Amino acid sequence: MSREPFVVVGADAAGLSAASKCRRADPDREVIVFEKGEWISYAYCGMPYFIEGRIDQLSSLLSLSPAKAADRGIDLRRNHEVTDVDPDAQTVRVEHDGERFIQSYDDLLVATGGRAVTGPLDVRDLDGAFTLHSMDAAAAIDAYIADPADYDLARIADTPADRSLVEANAALDAPETAAIVGGGYVGIEMAEALVGRGLDVHLFHRSDHLLPAFGEAVAERVEAELGAKNVTVHTNTPVEALAGDDRIEGVVYRTAADDAETELGVELAVVGIGITPNTELLEGTGVDHGDGGAILADEFGRTTLPDVYAAGDCATDRHVVTGEDAWMPLGLTANRAGRAIGATVGGDPTPVGDIAGTAVVKAFDLECGRVGLLDETEATAAGFDPVATTVTAGSRSGYYPGNSATDVTLVADRDSGRLLGGAIVGADRAAVRINTLATALDAEMDVCELEQLDLAYAPPFSPVWDPVLVAAKVLNGQRSD
Amino acid sequence: MSREPFVVVGADAAGLSAASKCRRADPDREVIVFEKGEWISYAYCGMPYFIEGRIDQLSSLLSLSPAKAADRGIDLRRNHEVTDVDPDAQTVRVEHDGERFIQSYDDLLVATGGRAVTGPLDVRDLDGAFTLHSMDAAAAIDAYIADPADYDLARIADTPADRSLVEANAALDAPETAAIVGGGYVGIEMAEALVGRGLDVHLFHRSDHLLPAFGEAVAERVEAELGAKNVTVHTNTPVEALAGDDRIEGVVYRTAADDAETELGVELAVVGIGITPNTELLEGTGVDHGDGGAILADEFGRTTLPDVYAAGDCATDRHVVTGEDAWMPLGLTANRAGRAIGATVGGDPTPVGDIAGTAVVKAFDLECGRVGLLDETEATAAGFDPVATTVTAGSRSGYYPGNSATDVTLVADRDSGRLLGGAIVGADRAAVRINTLATALDAEMDVCELEQLDLAYAPPFSPVWDPVLVAAKVLNGQRSD
Repeated sequence: MSREPFVVVGADAAGLSAASKCRRADPDREVIVFEKGEWISYAYCGMPYFIEGRIDQLSSLLSLSPAKAADRGIDLRRNHEVTDVDPDAQTVRVEHDGERFIQSYDDLLVATGGRAVTGPLDVRDLDGAFTLHSMDAAAAIDAYIADPADYDLARIADTPADRSLVEANAALDAPETAAIVGGGYVGIEMAEALVGRGLDVHLFHRSDHLLPAFGEAVAERVEAELGAKNVTVHTNTPVEALAGDDRIEGVVYRTAADDAETELGVELAVVGIGITPNTELLEGTGVDHGDGGAILADEFGRTTLPDVYAAGDCATDRHVVTGEDAWMPLGLTANRAGRAIGATVGGDPTPVGDIAGTAVVKAFDLECGRVGLLDETEATAAGFDPVATTVTAGSRSGYYPGNSATDVTLVADRDSGRLLGGAIVGADRAAVRINTLATALDAEMDVCELEQLDLAYAPPFSPVWDPVLVAAKVLNGQRSD
Repeated sequence: MSREPFVVVGADAAGLSAASKCRRADPDREVIVFEKGEWISYAYCGMPYFIEGRIDQLSSLLSLSPAKAADRGIDLRRNHEVTDVDPDAQTVRVEHDGERFIQSYDDLLVATGGRAVTGPLDVRDLDGAFTLHSMDAAAAIDAYIADPADYDLARIADTPADRSLVEANAALDAPETAAIVGGGYVGIEMAEALVGRGLDVHLFHRSDHLLPAFGEAVAERVEAELGAKNVTVHTNTPVEALAGDDRIEGVVYRTAADDAETELGVELAVVGIGITPNTELLEGTGVDHGDGGAILADEFGRTTLPDVYAAGDCATDRHVVTGEDAWMPLGLTANRAGRAIGATVGGDPTPVGDIAGTAVVKAFDLECGRVGLLDETEATAAGFDPVATTVTAGSRSGYYPGNSATDVTLVADRDSGRLLGGAIVGADRAAVRINTLATALDAEMDVCELEQLDLAYAPPFSPVWDPVLVAAKVLNGQRSD
């Protein structure tokens, strides 16, 4: 029996994980990966650290090389854009170098990722205005910040970065003042990166707290930390326009306090308002969409079209707390779903795994983590009666040097006590502590079980009562009041 | 109805947690705590760090003061030794200042702790030879190490430390070479402390690997780390005697390689071979004993005698993996069991919680953690068919500075896949990662579930695949081979 290949659209985390795993599971299976651009398998989350200068070469962010993909038996075709899917014929239409052709598939994975949204702000026609959702953007921002005399193309050696774009940006005078628009994790990470490059940084955020997904307790600590590191934080301050003709000259914003428009002069703007899933490829196929408009995928990553899978930033996953579809574009989710789909297509049916929305972010010297349902409105909508508490506990024994205040927020269902979500912030090993809660959520623990966990204690690492245990105890007390 | 009091024997973690909680739960209840010595509520685990000099004052290790205990309505009586229990009459016999009296109880908690064992080595009659299982010993070791001209009694201010003992030790010439006998956590922590004080340190361990409870992968890293920090590690080398008349002059040991006795000249020896539970108080009462000879206690901390509870280093707990009684003298266990018993006695029946044997230890720049059943013999004895793996994974994204090799050992039951135990060692946030496994053990997860956890990823804190996920994946592959 001759079979059509496993066709993958998109050669980043989800797509190449699936292709690699499928080839390992079934070495006879033909696997074709179409990527519309030059870049494959890069670490999106590493870009701010490249821009900061902690990482010397952009190539360090590249994971699987085209040569290694070939070694794995993957037929990787870059600069091939898949423009249409015909689920009845089980074919895709591909454009390459002005030519078009049709490719049949037995199984198809749509791993088209997401793209930055910019709201009313148009970054495309202004030098010095950027989003950060591609490696070319990272290379360009890095070059733009550098003093023209200092920039070295070695920064982008061994990558397919657009050299003319990079050289054009490197040739411009170095900026002194920067505006970051959007206080999510990219905004926070970029603030640290740009301070590290010596810029005067202003961070604008539409609503009253940064990092909305992490809850207020985290936001307040992060806002204080940014202030202490000389970032000017403007909350409740939407940016309405970018000013300038060829090159950015300022950001125009409106404060909640007075309704007047104000302009701040800047020579660099990075817009990080959010991302949206790239679902256009399946338009007109009748595929179902889920949370956030992403392609609806089930526990095996299957869409509602036969033999068509979706994974990564363009697809939903199942949320471990609600059991419903949720769109949470995160790195592990994409890798894990890709790998599972590769195994399934390769003959070993493997669930993609539920997601808990676990996320961690570094904000200068603070570590922040969040997981599950933190927002009370969201928890109520999911059918729970949420009760929440935030405690401040030590990260080490009180007498041990380096003990650092760690804030833990827990949210639980009042009657059942079931843990729904949590957040942690602190300067000492706070981020990885969120894994305790991610594991407890997966096990559907209640707060009494959480309070009884035998967690680690040693003076340099944790007090007798781990901050999570302290929070569980307080929340249990609160529930029974 | 007039009730007899809740009587507690021992005023450390378990005893005072129980007394405090009982008073909170039932403010009318009379609670008497008898402590045979002067010290109450001290942080045993902090002693090495005091000796190292990271902590300026011994008083920092004191938690609840006698005055605060009184504020809580606890009738605390120091220098009162309980010598006998009559479970039929529900009375204890108490000695104080040469007098004896009888005290009735309605509920009794035995929280008598443990004491250091020294095997064939008698430390009592030799200056410069110590165990480390009391605050007086910590004060004496610290004074002994100091140069006589430099020692300052401010180190022990505001504590009941035995000043004549401290002054006698401070008056002796400072040691230059130290032997630590026993490579468990106290031995490791003391090695770091004594190197910190400028001593030439030799660590002797009877068997082939240090930290036997942590497994070989941890031991190998720790042995290398100690060597790199100029500690001379002697494994397979039992110490058979301490040499010297009034003051220690050497340790006599026998190496496995050649069977000859050798003597190493030292001016300080710290013997940390292990501890044994203090169970003598209940001798002759017919109480049942469990693992390690400790007093057998059930899920509410009840002994087999009516209305008699036991908690802390003298008692067993229930192991979360085996479901059997286990003796694991650790700080959280004592505090937690004490608090639960206090609640139960105060009218709110509360289980003491299972233990997973979670332990973490700092070895210079390494962080080590262990949990559950690691030893294959022990796992087999508990009815499992253990399969184990150790992987080395990064603590951060490979391109992020500070990424550090993290070794994870996982043990699972071959057929069911149930997670049985694990260990982690590394230089970057390795210790608190053990809490992921402690939580998974409590939830009785199998390794497939573990592999599917949505754990945190951000380049500065964790790679896309957390080291625990990498280990779970490898172990799953191994199980199906």
